[in-house]
Amino acid sequence: MIIIDKIKIKHLLDDLDLLSSIREGFIDYSEGKCVIPPIGELLFKNPPGDVHIKYGYIIGGDYYVIKIASGFPKNEDNNISNGQGLILLFNQQTGEPIATLLDDALLTDIRTAIAGIICAEKFSNNIKNIGVLGTGTQARLQVQFLKLITDCRSVCVWGRNKKKAEKYKLDMSKYNFNVRIFDSPKEIAKNSNLIITATASETPLLKRKDINIGTHITALGADTPTKNELETSILKGADLIIADSISQCKVRGEIFHALTRNDIALDSVNELGSILSGSRKGRTSKEQITVADLTGIAVQDLKIAEAIYEKYLEVYQ
Amino acid sequence: MIIIDKIKIKHLLDDLDLLSSIREGFIDYSEGKCVIPPIGELLFKNPPGDVHIKYGYIIGGDYYVIKIASGFPKNEDNNISNGQGLILLFNQQTGEPIATLLDDALLTDIRTAIAGIICAEKFSNNIKNIGVLGTGTQARLQVQFLKLITDCRSVCVWGRNKKKAEKYKLDMSKYNFNVRIFDSPKEIAKNSNLIITATASETPLLKRKDINIGTHITALGADTPTKNELETSILKGADLIIADSISQCKVRGEIFHALTRNDIALDSVNELGSILSGSRKGRTSKEQITVADLTGIAVQDLKIAEAIYEKYLEVYQ
Repeated sequence: MIIIDKIKIKHLLDDLDLLSSIREGFIDYSEGKCVIPPIGELLFKNPPGDVHIKYGYIIGGDYYVIKIASGFPKNEDNNISNGQGLILLFNQQTGEPIATLLDDALLTDIRTAIAGIICAEKFSNNIKNIGVLGTGTQARLQVQFLKLITDCRSVCVWGRNKKKAEKYKLDMSKYNFNVRIFDSPKEIAKNSNLIITATASETPLLKRKDINIGTHITALGADTPTKNELETSILKGADLIIADSISQCKVRGEIFHALTRNDIALDSVNELGSILSGSRKGRTSKEQITVADLTGIAVQDLKIAEAIYEKYLEVYQ
Repeated sequence: MIIIDKIKIKHLLDDLDLLSSIREGFIDYSEGKCVIPPIGELLFKNPPGDVHIKYGYIIGGDYYVIKIASGFPKNEDNNISNGQGLILLFNQQTGEPIATLLDDALLTDIRTAIAGIICAEKFSNNIKNIGVLGTGTQARLQVQFLKLITDCRSVCVWGRNKKKAEKYKLDMSKYNFNVRIFDSPKEIAKNSNLIITATASETPLLKRKDINIGTHITALGADTPTKNELETSILKGADLIIADSISQCKVRGEIFHALTRNDIALDSVNELGSILSGSRKGRTSKEQITVADLTGIAVQDLKIAEAIYEKYLEVYQ
């Protein structure tokens, strides 16, 4: 079995067209070509931590994937990264282990950012101002990767912690983004036509009445049943609701909350891959408000791990 | 992260008291000290294969474990081992990966055999004849490990495939076992007071009326909802039914079948760890028929991986 460490992974990432391969993965998923069981979850109390195990395969593909990604928030106090984990690739024909990618959850961060960019590209109008809730890894990566699809460098950010917002502004300026800090999620909504919500909030931050006509929202903070960033009325009033995985969004994330409150019906939810393949409609007018809810699916992990592994063979062997 | 390969694992196994550590694991499990979510399962059709992901931790312990073990039956045609897999140990405080044990499912085989021996030691009468259904890995390992607890070297075996039974007899003679081959499971039952069922059968092989008074049966072939080696009437008529995990046996294995047919009630099932700790009674007379149903739990994987890893540190570092 080949072990690929984080330094090599970072190096290999430079030459990959992940946008295309992950887009293909979403399409395969929505066309029923993937076998992806429910997410495995392991929770810890003392210290707190949660581990997600995502696994599956594309029928007829070369590999199956098992991805372990965890968050242990107290790690920060000891100068250890909160995010930990690795990705395993196995031979789909024989079950033999092929490669371990020691990514410390880096590839989870990147494939999540890429999913956001796929949504931004497909659903947003001409991006004038990027609104961001949160100042963490996704709040950064999503914006950085937006460079792939837009020239907009104007960012409005809100974060619960002022110091972290200042740090965010400073750090993002190095990537040539002009960041303005605002005092409330409401002001972010008022000033943006693309909003990325990337917090761990368990109470809604954005309200229906704050959202401008024509806005696209990508909600990715809520990946569990308890987290919740959007008032369910936002989904109720949206012209288009997109889920990366309908089956997962039934049990976690923003759509789960809106379904639970009967604010939306399940058949009003469109799967990302179905829109990307053209079998369902996307945005049909500039005035529409669209909301994409991303919980993260194993096919993204498979696609990114496969791309890294095959590039590794090309470069190092 | 430390990688421990199979050669080292085999070497390290020699010096471990796994019987004690896995027994402790069962007790911790039954005392509610473990967090072990339902087994993850990934199934393949072409070629056929199944992957089981078992994971969990003992509260307050040092590690959490994720164990991947698969069976791809067509591998045999290409001289590749059917069993594949590996075990991952992580730091329970931080989520950091600590060790990968590249065991190709060897440790799954061994911890399963050890569980059988724990049952044989606790529940069988003085072993006069060891009856075995099946000629595969478990049919071999269970008998080999019985040396730890009995001087009996007399084995009766039945297998669907005559040639494999002959091979079994030959191979086991090298371990000083005197093996007699029989033509039916019924004859095995008639000639034994300890029976180990280790086939992949989906139709019952043993009938109630064939079982001698005082027999202990360890059923371990049926680890899925479809597999089934014992007529449910055997469980109905048994004086003591033992499950390694009540929650798992509700959905897979022999107990699952007997529950489904209403041949037994759930409260007649005792958990192995509860008997080992003394909080529930085991066999109370020589005449009783006892049945242990083993589906395999993550605490066994944790205990064996932990033992290998800690021995590795001692020997190699």
